Amino acid sequence: MAAKDIFHDAVKHALKKGGWTITHDPFFLSFGGVNMYVDLGAERIIAADRGDEKIAVEVKSFVGPSATTEFNFALGQFLKYQLALEEEHPERVLYLAVPVDAEREFFRLELPRRLIERYNVRLLIYDPEEEVIVKWQT
Amino acid sequence: MAAKDIFHDAVKHALKKGGWTITHDPFFLSFGGVNMYVDLGAERIIAADRGDEKIAVEVKSFVGPSATTEFNFALGQFLKYQLALEEEHPERVLYLAVPVDAEREFFRLELPRRLIERYNVRLLIYDPEEEVIVKWQT
Repeated sequence: MAAKDIFHDAVKHALKKGGWTITHDPFFLSFGGVNMYVDLGAERIIAADRGDEKIAVEVKSFVGPSATTEFNFALGQFLKYQLALEEEHPERVLYLAVPVDAEREFFRLELPRRLIERYNVRLLIYDPEEEVIVKWQT
Repeated sequence: MAAKDIFHDAVKHALKKGGWTITHDPFFLSFGGVNMYVDLGAERIIAADRGDEKIAVEVKSFVGPSATTEFNFALGQFLKYQLALEEEHPERVLYLAVPVDAEREFFRLELPRRLIERYNVRLLIYDPEEEVIVKWQT
């Protein structure tokens, strides 16, 4: 299985363990002349009277040689999906899924940290080996 | 010559024709734990008593099969360089150089247009064949 798919499946399993139902794989989005596929769509019942919580998750592996290069792409992609979701599916909250190692080694550096704060990038930090969600960072 | 270098050189020549002096090729930036290389740094005298104008330019070719994929990367890169320049070289204005064909065919779609507005991405639109600057869009 390609590395990309291993991480994709790890996040799917982690979400299921966390009580989420995978509703879209991928989640198709179309807005402003561009078609997009966010990796996953998921839902979870909060309470009978409050309805359910809906998310879209873009899975990143950060296994390539350059975290900063992968981060450029991920940031641009997050902001693009964010705008499209606001317009087309405002009830759905977008997350960027990043492995716990990348969070520890790269995302704590000042530059990515500041960019994540400035542009309100929500992170879902996952453990790809244990296939569990480590932290939701919003 | 690689396609990347052809576009890089076209923008260099276009800037020179426009009265700019290329001062950095590439322009090295370091901030927040990350080293970066913006494609070009340039300066132009405005008036003897007002000093000079300084820019940094990241050159994009948009020759790949997917403009939207290249745009993800370019947007993330622009925002990263923008933050680093604000901190380290606040006098220098950042531009993303895009070929006139890409501007006409992709950048006028609603999604990229809205992202460019929302995140204040400054564009330098160039003609790669004539090697001239077509428009500064800020």
